[in-house]
Amino acid sequence: MIPRYTRKEMADIWTPENRFKIWRDIEVFACEAMAEIGMIPKASAENIAKNAPTHFTPEDTAKIDEIERTTKHDVIAFLTHLATFIGEDSRFVHQGMTSSDVLDTCFSVQLKQASELLLADLDKLLETLKKRAFEHKNTLTIGRSHGIHAEPVTFGLKLAGYYAEFERCKQRLLTAKKDISTCAISGAVGTFANINPRVEEYVAKKLGLEIEPVSTQIIPRDRHAYYFSVLGVIASSIERLATEVRHLQRTEVYEAEEFFSEGQKGSSAMPHKRNPVLSENLCGLARIVRMSVIPAMENVALWHERDISHSSVERMIAPDATVTLDFALVRAQSMMEKLIVYPQNMQKNLDKLGGLSNSQRILLLLTQKGVSREDSYKLVQRNAMKVWLEGKDFLTELKSDSEVTDKITHKELEEMFDIAYHTKQVDFIFDRVFVK
Amino acid sequence: MIPRYTRKEMADIWTPENRFKIWRDIEVFACEAMAEIGMIPKASAENIAKNAPTHFTPEDTAKIDEIERTTKHDVIAFLTHLATFIGEDSRFVHQGMTSSDVLDTCFSVQLKQASELLLADLDKLLETLKKRAFEHKNTLTIGRSHGIHAEPVTFGLKLAGYYAEFERCKQRLLTAKKDISTCAISGAVGTFANINPRVEEYVAKKLGLEIEPVSTQIIPRDRHAYYFSVLGVIASSIERLATEVRHLQRTEVYEAEEFFSEGQKGSSAMPHKRNPVLSENLCGLARIVRMSVIPAMENVALWHERDISHSSVERMIAPDATVTLDFALVRAQSMMEKLIVYPQNMQKNLDKLGGLSNSQRILLLLTQKGVSREDSYKLVQRNAMKVWLEGKDFLTELKSDSEVTDKITHKELEEMFDIAYHTKQVDFIFDRVFVK
Amino acid sequence: MIPRYTRKEMADIWTPENRFKIWRDIEVFACEAMAEIGMIPKASAENIAKNAPTHFTPEDTAKIDEIERTTKHDVIAFLTHLATFIGEDSRFVHQGMTSSDVLDTCFSVQLKQASELLLADLDKLLETLKKRAFEHKNTLTIGRSHGIHAEPVTFGLKLAGYYAEFERCKQRLLTAKKDISTCAISGAVGTFANINPRVEEYVAKKLGLEIEPVSTQIIPRDRHAYYFSVLGVIASSIERLATEVRHLQRTEVYEAEEFFSEGQKGSSAMPHKRNPVLSENLCGLARIVRMSVIPAMENVALWHERDISHSSVERMIAPDATVTLDFALVRAQSMMEKLIVYPQNMQKNLDKLGGLSNSQRILLLLTQKGVSREDSYKLVQRNAMKVWLEGKDFLTELKSDSEVTDKITHKELEEMFDIAYHTKQVDFIFDRVFVK
Amino acid sequence: MIPRYTRKEMADIWTPENRFKIWRDIEVFACEAMAEIGMIPKASAENIAKNAPTHFTPEDTAKIDEIERTTKHDVIAFLTHLATFIGEDSRFVHQGMTSSDVLDTCFSVQLKQASELLLADLDKLLETLKKRAFEHKNTLTIGRSHGIHAEPVTFGLKLAGYYAEFERCKQRLLTAKKDISTCAISGAVGTFANINPRVEEYVAKKLGLEIEPVSTQIIPRDRHAYYFSVLGVIASSIERLATEVRHLQRTEVYEAEEFFSEGQKGSSAMPHKRNPVLSENLCGLARIVRMSVIPAMENVALWHERDISHSSVERMIAPDATVTLDFALVRAQSMMEKLIVYPQNMQKNLDKLGGLSNSQRILLLLTQKGVSREDSYKLVQRNAMKVWLEGKDFLTELKSDSEVTDKITHKELEEMFDIAYHTKQVDFIFDRVFVK
Repeated sequence: MIPRYTRKEMADIWTPENRFKIWRDIEVFACEAMAEIGMIPKASAENIAKNAPTHFTPEDTAKIDEIERTTKHDVIAFLTHLATFIGEDSRFVHQGMTSSDVLDTCFSVQLKQASELLLADLDKLLETLKKRAFEHKNTLTIGRSHGIHAEPVTFGLKLAGYYAEFERCKQRLLTAKKDISTCAISGAVGTFANINPRVEEYVAKKLGLEIEPVSTQIIPRDRHAYYFSVLGVIASSIERLATEVRHLQRTEVYEAEEFFSEGQKGSSAMPHKRNPVLSENLCGLARIVRMSVIPAMENVALWHERDISHSSVERMIAPDATVTLDFALVRAQSMMEKLIVYPQNMQKNLDKLGGLSNSQRILLLLTQKGVSREDSYKLVQRNAMKVWLEGKDFLTELKSDSEVTDKITHKELEEMFDIAYHTKQVDFIFDRVFVK
Repeated sequence: MIPRYTRKEMADIWTPENRFKIWRDIEVFACEAMAEIGMIPKASAENIAKNAPTHFTPEDTAKIDEIERTTKHDVIAFLTHLATFIGEDSRFVHQGMTSSDVLDTCFSVQLKQASELLLADLDKLLETLKKRAFEHKNTLTIGRSHGIHAEPVTFGLKLAGYYAEFERCKQRLLTAKKDISTCAISGAVGTFANINPRVEEYVAKKLGLEIEPVSTQIIPRDRHAYYFSVLGVIASSIERLATEVRHLQRTEVYEAEEFFSEGQKGSSAMPHKRNPVLSENLCGLARIVRMSVIPAMENVALWHERDISHSSVERMIAPDATVTLDFALVRAQSMMEKLIVYPQNMQKNLDKLGGLSNSQRILLLLTQKGVSREDSYKLVQRNAMKVWLEGKDFLTELKSDSEVTDKITHKELEEMFDIAYHTKQVDFIFDRVFVK
Repeated sequence: MIPRYTRKEMADIWTPENRFKIWRDIEVFACEAMAEIGMIPKASAENIAKNAPTHFTPEDTAKIDEIERTTKHDVIAFLTHLATFIGEDSRFVHQGMTSSDVLDTCFSVQLKQASELLLADLDKLLETLKKRAFEHKNTLTIGRSHGIHAEPVTFGLKLAGYYAEFERCKQRLLTAKKDISTCAISGAVGTFANINPRVEEYVAKKLGLEIEPVSTQIIPRDRHAYYFSVLGVIASSIERLATEVRHLQRTEVYEAEEFFSEGQKGSSAMPHKRNPVLSENLCGLARIVRMSVIPAMENVALWHERDISHSSVERMIAPDATVTLDFALVRAQSMMEKLIVYPQNMQKNLDKLGGLSNSQRILLLLTQKGVSREDSYKLVQRNAMKVWLEGKDFLTELKSDSEVTDKITHKELEEMFDIAYHTKQVDFIFDRVFVK
Repeated sequence: MIPRYTRKEMADIWTPENRFKIWRDIEVFACEAMAEIGMIPKASAENIAKNAPTHFTPEDTAKIDEIERTTKHDVIAFLTHLATFIGEDSRFVHQGMTSSDVLDTCFSVQLKQASELLLADLDKLLETLKKRAFEHKNTLTIGRSHGIHAEPVTFGLKLAGYYAEFERCKQRLLTAKKDISTCAISGAVGTFANINPRVEEYVAKKLGLEIEPVSTQIIPRDRHAYYFSVLGVIASSIERLATEVRHLQRTEVYEAEEFFSEGQKGSSAMPHKRNPVLSENLCGLARIVRMSVIPAMENVALWHERDISHSSVERMIAPDATVTLDFALVRAQSMMEKLIVYPQNMQKNLDKLGGLSNSQRILLLLTQKGVSREDSYKLVQRNAMKVWLEGKDFLTELKSDSEVTDKITHKELEEMFDIAYHTKQVDFIFDRVFVK
């Protein structure tokens, strides 16, 4: 977590204070369940629920840390601190449970909370992409393959594609969230030897989690590997969007530009020096999110019923990947919200090749008129080359090529240059993407 | 694809012959659709469907390769070869389509076919794990955390955990298969300028694919990134299973062993030299499958409407990752099917610590009898140390410690050593995992 | 290994025939050493050297494979086949050795051979980069940061940078080659229990390898991890070069272009459709080479004196990474050799901003003339904005701004637009890079 | 950087205060150089050197951060703060330089400083491994391949192997340190348009760096990719060492154990619950260090003369990878220093197979006595099986097998069981590793 790439909302999920709050909930809910099935006195459970603080402060954290320096055990330190609020009934707290029951279930809750923030981020990004897609539904621009002009599209159509991609990302995250939202309170080796499975069921329900059907000491790490993989895919989609903006803002292309505030200076005296730093930054952030995927997968093969090798990895990647992805999604939304689009420049670039982007249509028409594909190609190419090499206008050249006009009338030729030909299905595609 | 780690069933999906068969289907279905909407004559479409070969041979491939050496374009080479069967009507084939329409839709079909094989593999592995889990439902063995003895579990319970994990893997693969099963026939920049969207809908339906709501020139690569991520997660779960077997076969543990055929020789003169080579191999194969995840994610951010950088990556990772995972799943199934389990050795290891695995129960009982947690711990520990250091029997020691027997009767102590205490919820857990 | 991205020279290193040739050398050299120290008869060693074939054919491979199907052991199958040439003395072959002695030492030889090819590739690429750097030493072009015009450089200077980068890559590969060029013939657990260390020394010397100071059963895998990491770094440098070419060939930039043969067609009817497919392909190949790095690192932590999990990984990544990198280096060399450079377009782009790239110089001059930095900035910016927004010429505007001309004469202003200012150190930098 | 895995020494390198100190040095040295070549007054340079603070405090950082909130530019904020100490001469500071000149050269200094700490860590680890290797030079233990008993080695020999591996790691880090120790002060696009190259040379020398022969705006990132790769290789070697310790501490193996302080409690009531948590943690830390390798490689292909996508990645991975590796090396050293070794348990495990580890020797002797390899194998195996299956003693069985004793005398057989046979080359290997 680097402060400059961190939003407080997500960082708060990973504070000790939030962790202790969740631990508290798990312990209190477990006591309620134990009371319900007669394992501990109802009055004690009520007392515990009443006295256990529902909010933890940095002061609490300091005290718990102080205790941990002696006990060298985080959960025990927490329980000791909790006991100062609860008094004698604290002996009923954590009964038959194992540290991992608390730690892993808490981790699930945190990842679920993180997912909710990320889903909200995605919703905002989707809303923005949709708004701007409709705004530029008919803004003509050249489609490019291999960085080379191909045929016309609209800028809205490009954005509709990103919308659909992030909609898929959202669905994947919903699936991953469901996968990770699991609760295990099953004791030292998952046998429920010292704890009744009904405790697990109760706590799971209270926390909005599913029960883990079979755990070892821990919640199996394939769930986490899958979760971080999905974050990596979302980050890669952000990279695609950011790469597009970087290209559009290039000096020679200049079809769009990240917003620059009035007073903001570029990096030098040159007024054109408005750098696409947000989108470049997003590309870097994507690499950061992605780097958590392989370690998360390496964490799966723990030894026997568990080892602790995954722990340090998760302490690092869980905050880093979620905080960075949250920041990136919010930045991407803001970048797209404020993106300055230059339709005139789009048109200028579109016109750059003198109508050559219609060459395929002429070719098709010639073949429909009975000219062989080989001959058609030659006819088109010889006119296209004049455009390409001598800067002529394609339609003009075609009109004055008698072999062409033998087959195609001037009127037909002109129709071939109707831009509407390329955009006629935009409404249809928008319906597919946005109407469901 | 390394022959020794390749099954023909999966390799066949990636042959040129299967690719050409799928290309043929796409082209023929597209013609049918075009005929239906009146773009080409019905008779021509029928003629095309009738004459286009439904099966391609290595000889076809050789001919197509020969043509490609001239045209330097794979799809054109294919169409040229196809034309030799179809004759004049071949001019209607591929009309208004773009190579990527064929290539990407074909790739979807191949990944869908691969998924089906992998799902069948998973089903067989699940079946085996289930069978062996029930077989060893009550086979006692020590649970281990950090490689150190913890508390008893059953071997069946371990296997139930793997069953649940691979069941999750199956669900993830079903999701990934659905995600990748998409068809795009939308032309050079995805605008349907030269092709009616109803063609795409028709072909998609025929191939059992969904339509791609909005494509550029290509099917967006976030779908593929997600797909390969899921393969990576499954591989990691295989690694966990394989690591368990490797541990169990260690000379000092020797609780289970990969099957050795009668005549098979170990790697040296030593008869005990039965090496867990299958499970070790599976760990390596997991690394191979996983290595495709990051490149697949790097493939997402193609430039503008597409570039071709993803192509070489996919030519490599698509066969390699699916073939290797298929091989690994089949090997894992066979390994688990034939795994030789040694319940006596499990019991011997379980007994190794003279009953110490029950120390926690004694501790809990003492606290229930009113002894403070600190004093209880000391009482338990001083007896445990004799077991640990001097090889004494834990129950015997406890019985002769008067401070213990002041609080707990001999009968109560004996009950604390009842192994059934640890296994009492095994049925319950099995119900959770296997009954739904 | 995908045939289309494979050169025979590198693929040959990984054939069974080359492997058998190296195995043969190891075994024969070991016999020579054993004879020298009196362990086996000199005549037998001579006989073995004389009769062991120095060249293996696919027929040999087929026979050895046939034997392996029975023995299920590759080295034993090889030795059995070898014995058919050697006769009775074959009992002296492989004495006291372990399969890994042969396999790992052979792998070192293969990686050394691969390094030699890659070094030759790098040398050719360096030569080409040098030639083209000198050719375009003074070809002016705009330098870009963030994809935005910054200040002028020369195209030769860009190429000099790539030269220096690949020179570093070469040094790293030399180091990695030295690191991997190691020989271990130390027996089943590396103790030389059954073999004299002098055999190892002799064989190492004969093969041009260093001895492995201490091996387990195998050559430690940190050497290989390092090796593949270096390949990954080289691949990343190729990606940088290829990305530059892709940018330069964009329609709007069009400063350079990959070579297109006369008859070659672009991907459609449009003559401008010359796609930078070589450089795009190189970006994909870079991802492929890089993906071997993490598995190679995961291979390091083998269990105890060895396990076999690394084997499948190496069977895959060793050919794939070396073949792909070799192909990529050769393709990069050819791409750069034939790259069509358009100096006029470079100049056109350079002129695009009406001289704005000199704005920093004006700014500096104003401050030197005593104007505060803030005021200088404002003066420059108000003139620059007219250029930027209204397409005016920067020098003309400055000359007609009296607040500017109060401080700077027309002559001084003109000097500020002298392009030679930017190129004055090019010779110096070339000396640094190319003269040593 | 997670506090619990962070040593202050390394974290200090990455504080703003250290960064500002290095920036200050670069700026002051640059002024000295400019004075020397007559670009600025000597007195001014002296004044700058005298007044620029040589130490920065958190208060300075707060002030600079405050300024940055306005300027939105870190280097300008720093220079503004610096000016408050220097006064009017501050206008000579940073003249003709670019932010990247300062940022990238500073990054080189920080990575060099980090390398020095890591090299010191490696030296201490090497010293410890050497000491313990000699301590256990003759401590017999079983060598294991595939986790299965193979032939005897000594524990010292194992440690000598790790020593040699970390010695290689040290050499690699020295190379990487040299590679990264480079200084660029070449202006906005690396042309030295506004700055004399002699400034770069002077500053480089003062900082103990090499000059960057040709830079763009930045120091090329292949250097950093290589650096982080080497860290990844070192981390992988740590993982191998840690994995060995984890295996040795397993309950069933128990040949060594991480140190437990007197008062320390295991994780439960069970006194045997001494978990190898340090070595497990080291395996996790290795994954963390390794995850920086791919992003560092993805950072290489920046666009044209630079983009800023690498920046966020480096802000994250540079502290994380160096801090984590430093912590891991120190922890590994301490773990090995205090490792409790149980030679009796090693012997007990060695004896476990009743002498079977000598079976290969018997086999060899029989063949030397003229028995065919096949018959020898059968003779050995039938006796070995009795040991393996019935727990008999191998030597006893051999002595009572007349077909064996027909060929080999009792005395010869006994000699085959002489453990010294396996250890006879230990001195020789130690000489190779430790004497140079």
